[in-house]
Amino acid sequence: MDDRRFMKMALTLARKGTGVTSPNPMVGAVVVKNEKIEGKGFHRKAGAPHAEVEALRDAGPRARGATLFVTLEPCNHFGRTPPCTRAILDAGIRRVVTAMADPNPNVTGGGMDFLKKNGVETALGLLEDEARVLNEAYIKFVSTRRPFVIAKCAATLDGRIATRTGDARWVTGESSRRHVHRMRHAADAIMVGVGTIKRDDPRLTTRIPRKKGCHPIRVILDTRLSIPEQAKVLRHGTDSDTLLVIGEGYENSPEVMAKKRRIEKPGVKIITAPLKGDRIDLDRLMDRLGALDITHLLIEGGSRTLGTAFSSGIVDKIAFFFAPKILAGDDGYPVCRGSGPERIEESLRVYRIRHRRFGDDVMIEGYLKPESRAARRQNR
Amino acid sequence: MDDRRFMKMALTLARKGTGVTSPNPMVGAVVVKNEKIEGKGFHRKAGAPHAEVEALRDAGPRARGATLFVTLEPCNHFGRTPPCTRAILDAGIRRVVTAMADPNPNVTGGGMDFLKKNGVETALGLLEDEARVLNEAYIKFVSTRRPFVIAKCAATLDGRIATRTGDARWVTGESSRRHVHRMRHAADAIMVGVGTIKRDDPRLTTRIPRKKGCHPIRVILDTRLSIPEQAKVLRHGTDSDTLLVIGEGYENSPEVMAKKRRIEKPGVKIITAPLKGDRIDLDRLMDRLGALDITHLLIEGGSRTLGTAFSSGIVDKIAFFFAPKILAGDDGYPVCRGSGPERIEESLRVYRIRHRRFGDDVMIEGYLKPESRAARRQNR
Repeated sequence: MDDRRFMKMALTLARKGTGVTSPNPMVGAVVVKNEKIEGKGFHRKAGAPHAEVEALRDAGPRARGATLFVTLEPCNHFGRTPPCTRAILDAGIRRVVTAMADPNPNVTGGGMDFLKKNGVETALGLLEDEARVLNEAYIKFVSTRRPFVIAKCAATLDGRIATRTGDARWVTGESSRRHVHRMRHAADAIMVGVGTIKRDDPRLTTRIPRKKGCHPIRVILDTRLSIPEQAKVLRHGTDSDTLLVIGEGYENSPEVMAKKRRIEKPGVKIITAPLKGDRIDLDRLMDRLGALDITHLLIEGGSRTLGTAFSSGIVDKIAFFFAPKILAGDDGYPVCRGSGPERIEESLRVYRIRHRRFGDDVMIEGYLKPESRAARRQNR
Repeated sequence: MDDRRFMKMALTLARKGTGVTSPNPMVGAVVVKNEKIEGKGFHRKAGAPHAEVEALRDAGPRARGATLFVTLEPCNHFGRTPPCTRAILDAGIRRVVTAMADPNPNVTGGGMDFLKKNGVETALGLLEDEARVLNEAYIKFVSTRRPFVIAKCAATLDGRIATRTGDARWVTGESSRRHVHRMRHAADAIMVGVGTIKRDDPRLTTRIPRKKGCHPIRVILDTRLSIPEQAKVLRHGTDSDTLLVIGEGYENSPEVMAKKRRIEKPGVKIITAPLKGDRIDLDRLMDRLGALDITHLLIEGGSRTLGTAFSSGIVDKIAFFFAPKILAGDDGYPVCRGSGPERIEESLRVYRIRHRRFGDDVMIEGYLKPESRAARRQNR
């Protein structure tokens, strides 16, 4: 049987849940008998049936004696739904192939072991790398309770995200900007500094149609609550929240309290976070965002926010778009503001570099931490 | 006959002349009869036989009735050597296929027309794009008498070529640095600002072995002759020159005159160039370098030199290496220093973008001017 082909299909199904399954993982499953697909399913949203159950239902009685391909180890515990391992046994599945073990250290797990003990043939690790990338945000979140953080920027070839007047329309081309909308769609939240709001007044929505309640949350770092009251993020038409993060200590000043009363309304929330120097402590903010079930955070700038994000060590992945443009000056906005190290050796390293073309733009992506093989083995 | 295959072979032969044919073009030729290669040749250096003549000599009497593939239109005039068209007729070649017309407006040309009139079958334009890229420096030089200028930089992903202390060892990896040596090898001259000499004290030689006299010339922009007298470029072991460019007006100051006397020696020359503001006028300098038969100039920085090169409009091509590193500050050296435009729309556009991997570095290359089809047709 062409296992890889069926697992690829399950991964493609899983991707249909992009942006809507959080805080659950994206999972896809196919039921195959005699090289024929008898059932397909994917996890549609938290609380909805798991992918395996969808695929088994789709296959009906034809699942008996079949192979189940599923991108993540079936759950073996009662969560919002009964355990999938039970459904698999009940359906008479003969063999289960999964791409990766359940990375969640907080659940009982052991789905594959349980199936094996109950006479089901099992195989683990097929297309594991793809499955891990698909759910990289989920994996980070369930093991740390902090969001997986992607830092995105769009720069000229000489490393400027805006001109000296703050003009950034458009650094990158249409094709890159479409991809950014896909990235926003996949995220639970988008974070920018209030400087970006003042300069660009972005909507920070995604152009990709989403189900009600699924637009990413907008997180604005605004230590002193200096956001213009007419900012688009305060007047958006979507039903997801804008979250203003102000610095601890500022919330009690009379001006901030008055402005807070004017701004706060359904859809606009204000939280406080500890400071580090005169800026929001991003490391500690990540714990708070994790507690709000934000599993996947996209940081879109500006320079100061990116600089602080990198130096506070919260960034997991980067996506830097380089447009075929040169400003030829050092007075535009840099990619990062802040103080860098003395030596190149002390720079942050980016691993598993990939480059992609979007029209004439080149996007470079990679990870801030080398993949730990030990951590991967632990999960088996 | 598989014309493309033979022209590719001729192009590969032509490339053997990389870095050594200047101010002549690189040219390769093969003589083919009945699908069999009877002769091969390339232009080895200015003054040496042309590629066609080498290939015809190699083929000897077997050239009679054969096809000649040559990457550039055969010359039809007496230069340092007799016209190739004459040699082609004498050898009894039946058919001549060339990749591109002679772009030199200063020679009589008409080699293909002459051959045609004399009963030789001719075809022009096979793999023309490849041939034009191969000789892009020569093409620019013969039509403008100014060097073809490549601006190279090696930056972190956040657009820094050195840390705040000036440390730049190493931004990019070994594989990129090897490619830079190939780029140096292909150039007639390498240009940097004196700031780079003070900061890095580079040798600016190429690690690729070259024939005597073929190392690229080092051009140092040094308005006030402030170069440290111990700089490696003043004490190099190669037999090519270091050319210090000082600003007009400074050459008569007593200090400069005294230092000039100490520094100037065989292998170290000092020329003056007009100023524009307080910097060397690079546009006018290009005319002077062209007059010195520098056809192909590689600018390697630093920030101020790159910024000025871009804003003075002398750059034809860029090669920007991005290393998988992030400094996360704005205090390192930027790619360009200077004053940029107000709006993104006013940025310099880079055309015909290509990206290449060198290890984990991504190199983005492209051209500062869109390719003019009109200009290409004119050359036919």
